[in-house]
Amino acid sequence: MLYIEKLYEKLGTEKVTQQETELKRHSKDESMHDAVYPDVVCFPESKEDIQIILHIASEYQIAVTPFGAGSGLEGQVIPIQKGISLDFQNMNKVLDFSPEDMRVTVQPGIMKSELNQFISQQGLFFAGGPDYDATIGGMTATNASGTRAVRYGVMRDQILDLEVVLADGMSFHTGTKAKKSSSGYHLTSLFAGSEGTLGIITEITLKLHSIPDYSTVARCTFETPELCAIAAQNILLNGIPIMRMELIDSVSIGIINKQCGHDFPVKHSLFLEFAGPKNTVAEEVKLASKIMHDLGCENWDAASDSISKKKLWEARVQLAVSFQDLKGMKEIGGDVCVPISQLPKLVSFTRSSMDESGLKGALWGHIGDGNFHTSILYNPEVNGEQELAEQINDAIVNLAIEVGGTCTGEHGVGLGKKKFQVSEHGAALEMMQRTKQLYDPKGILNPGKIFS
Amino acid sequence: MLYIEKLYEKLGTEKVTQQETELKRHSKDESMHDAVYPDVVCFPESKEDIQIILHIASEYQIAVTPFGAGSGLEGQVIPIQKGISLDFQNMNKVLDFSPEDMRVTVQPGIMKSELNQFISQQGLFFAGGPDYDATIGGMTATNASGTRAVRYGVMRDQILDLEVVLADGMSFHTGTKAKKSSSGYHLTSLFAGSEGTLGIITEITLKLHSIPDYSTVARCTFETPELCAIAAQNILLNGIPIMRMELIDSVSIGIINKQCGHDFPVKHSLFLEFAGPKNTVAEEVKLASKIMHDLGCENWDAASDSISKKKLWEARVQLAVSFQDLKGMKEIGGDVCVPISQLPKLVSFTRSSMDESGLKGALWGHIGDGNFHTSILYNPEVNGEQELAEQINDAIVNLAIEVGGTCTGEHGVGLGKKKFQVSEHGAALEMMQRTKQLYDPKGILNPGKIFS
Ligand SMILES: Cc1cc2nc3c(=O)[nH]c(=O)nc-3n(C[C@H](O)[C@H](O)[C@H](O)COP(=O)(O)OP(=O)(O)OC[C@H]3O[C@@H](n4cnc5c(N)ncnc54)[C@H](O)[C@@H]3O)c2cc1C
Ligand SMILES: Cc1cc2nc3c(=O)[nH]c(=O)nc-3n(C[C@H](O)[C@H](O)[C@H](O)COP(=O)(O)OP(=O)(O)OC[C@H]3O[C@@H](n4cnc5c(N)ncnc54)[C@H](O)[C@@H]3O)c2cc1C
Repeated sequence: MLYIEKLYEKLGTEKVTQQETELKRHSKDESMHDAVYPDVVCFPESKEDIQIILHIASEYQIAVTPFGAGSGLEGQVIPIQKGISLDFQNMNKVLDFSPEDMRVTVQPGIMKSELNQFISQQGLFFAGGPDYDATIGGMTATNASGTRAVRYGVMRDQILDLEVVLADGMSFHTGTKAKKSSSGYHLTSLFAGSEGTLGIITEITLKLHSIPDYSTVARCTFETPELCAIAAQNILLNGIPIMRMELIDSVSIGIINKQCGHDFPVKHSLFLEFAGPKNTVAEEVKLASKIMHDLGCENWDAASDSISKKKLWEARVQLAVSFQDLKGMKEIGGDVCVPISQLPKLVSFTRSSMDESGLKGALWGHIGDGNFHTSILYNPEVNGEQELAEQINDAIVNLAIEVGGTCTGEHGVGLGKKKFQVSEHGAALEMMQRTKQLYDPKGILNPGKIFS
Repeated sequence: MLYIEKLYEKLGTEKVTQQETELKRHSKDESMHDAVYPDVVCFPESKEDIQIILHIASEYQIAVTPFGAGSGLEGQVIPIQKGISLDFQNMNKVLDFSPEDMRVTVQPGIMKSELNQFISQQGLFFAGGPDYDATIGGMTATNASGTRAVRYGVMRDQILDLEVVLADGMSFHTGTKAKKSSSGYHLTSLFAGSEGTLGIITEITLKLHSIPDYSTVARCTFETPELCAIAAQNILLNGIPIMRMELIDSVSIGIINKQCGHDFPVKHSLFLEFAGPKNTVAEEVKLASKIMHDLGCENWDAASDSISKKKLWEARVQLAVSFQDLKGMKEIGGDVCVPISQLPKLVSFTRSSMDESGLKGALWGHIGDGNFHTSILYNPEVNGEQELAEQINDAIVNLAIEVGGTCTGEHGVGLGKKKFQVSEHGAALEMMQRTKQLYDPKGILNPGKIFS
């Protein structure tokens, strides 16, 4: 293809490849969506390289799909119109680090773990993004978040400035290095979460936080999901700056026990982490324990040394593993987010839907944010199971939207959540589509994601 | 004028007025920009009223300028193309309050003080916006913030959802009632800070916070602004969730003493507020005191009872008053925001510029955010003084942008900061203008603000 020749000509063979292994690696993410091979993979090393690639893509009307670590869960990096997969692995540098201002500027390809290693010597850490390791660019583009969002907010909340390149090669910064601004339209938050459909992110300036001195984790159980939700609300209402607050329902605990040989109490369980100066943490744990016991919690257990902390949190960690071990089974993952008061409704609906269908599944959530994950297992060899699992997932999403929530709290839209965009956004979707048209009139940037 | 007849016809005389007093009240804000009378003022009571008004304005190509409390400092509500001033005073209801989810939905015309009174019975407060009282709609449209932003963030950080009406009458919600979402483009943050130029905000859903049990305020002094900045950085680096952290430079303290008959130590002063559970606050104050003394602070004083707290904070409060008392003088107000490490440079530049010019002025700042306010006094009767004050203010803004900051941390662009938009935003400004064009193709919404 002519445009690929052009790419080689302008960038050289080091930055462009059509190797089978690379095409395959860039054909999918961690979702269940079907793989599609790109025609070519590019590894830009600078903004200028990206501008060259976009000029060629623009001229030949070729799709360009940015690729971070490929850990997405909604098919965001799958190049469904083939063309160019744009991989940032060679743009992974720290460009500017100001520990005294608690701020860092990085290229998009750096992994969260690499960044945290770099800055930890100064007692700082990057608090945003998912718990799973991925690139800062991918986290920005999906507005990722995880267990610590209840304390530090989502990816958007961490970003001071982005440098972006639009489809036509135009480049600009969306913010400044100051901590706040009321100047102009807030394009930063428009690009954060845009999944590579509006422009390529080439630099990210992030807020950092200080690593807490000390932490305690705790676990307890309740009779009902309602009580778990009320407990979580009361933690927040009491102003406790909880670091993490996780729910696992009783059936999921049962599965974990069975798969991993544990004997965790088979009840709806809350997992809590407190972090800060030692004395403050001690006060918070005391208050939290009182809140929990006033609501009738059982099996309260708290620990501050690392071995006991690990043991206490183990069920939460085992959750992922215990399902990977169910050989031959596949899973459909859910990620809705609702007001906390609506979580019990979602939990009981989900549990009864799974029970009635006969499908196994787990449910857990970042309860402090009302973010609620499900994993519905199906056997791809058994006729109809996948469809059934999808139906249940769809029904959960529809209920979430109905009670005032969103189809995705963390993972983004990609391919998987496209069908819920109309019911969630209504008329706003039209303005989103016109925004896409404005930024990328030829539709070459990650086409077919978010909208059709 | 024909369109005004139409307004009367469709809305009735209760919601439309051309009274001189109302035209005058809607001709200006709290800035120094020249007043311009609108042709007519409308007081809508619903989204439908607003849609009617916009349809008429659209048909006749009439400017519509939203008006909150008129407390803006950059001329945002001045109807420079006359037309309709849209006042939300009759849209000031609480529509939905969910204390257990720490969330409230209001109409735009409600005042922050009214909202806080309403929700305080449940132990909650709205932590965003300026300290000065204003409407929630106006605060949203300017992305306002104040002394508490260092802990709770700016207005954008408080918003879960907006209902907006575009110039053509189209209406939608930008978010949901869930605490986080990764679905679609984040239009919420686009409207927050858009100063009425993209659409009319008709509903705002806000996050709330719990009222802290206890607080302590403290004051201390340092020899140099550098030491103040380092002290502020160290408070944040130590993870102290400081409630407020304010700087006043020594010359300003001298003015306050003289004008108000105090004898505060004439040194660069830091004012701190700690808030939370009693024991936690005590720990934080102890740590902060150590940080300050390690850096050589003097005059450290801390208080927790309300009378002493008031006295300690008095200089900060007197700041505004002491300048109002300088009869016959006018002031130009500054509002830049820079990385904290750059604040000392700004402080010394500003102070020496004022000294060299012979003009009096104060400078103070929300130092934890690097937000830096100035008030340069001039005598409008003395030839050239206003120009000189403006020159100094411009030079401060240019320096702020040069060191990586923004021309406005809080107050917005309006008329006053238009001239800095190119140097601050560069090529991004073009996309902002195209966004304006997309949302308001006829240019009827608050024309002439942010851009020309
Ligand atoms: C086991 C597991 C656990 C997970 N847990 C979480 C979780 O807790 N929370 C959560 O939010 N997610 C989670 N995820 C999903 C995933 O890790 C996140 O979506 C992550 O943000 C993706 O980052 P990535 O670097 O892998 O990006 P990719 O998946 O490679 O790409 C994601 C999107 O970003 C775009 N993109 C990447 N780089 C750029 C750039 N420079 N410019 C423009 N667009 C770009 C891509 O085009 C794509 O649309 C999990 C995934 C797995 C497999
Ligand atoms: C003494 C004093 C102290 C101040 N301190 C601070 C401070 O600490 N921090 C700070 O940020 N500001 C401060 N301000 C400025 C001012 O209070 C803020 O800008 C405030 O947010 C303006 O709110 P308002 O209701 O008065 O809005 P207005 O001034 O009436 O309007 C502001 C903008 O909002 C638009 N608007 C209003 N309602 C809507 C709506 N429903 N839909 C769309 N657009 C709308 C208007 O068109 C205009 O562009 C201060 C002002 C004074 C006088």
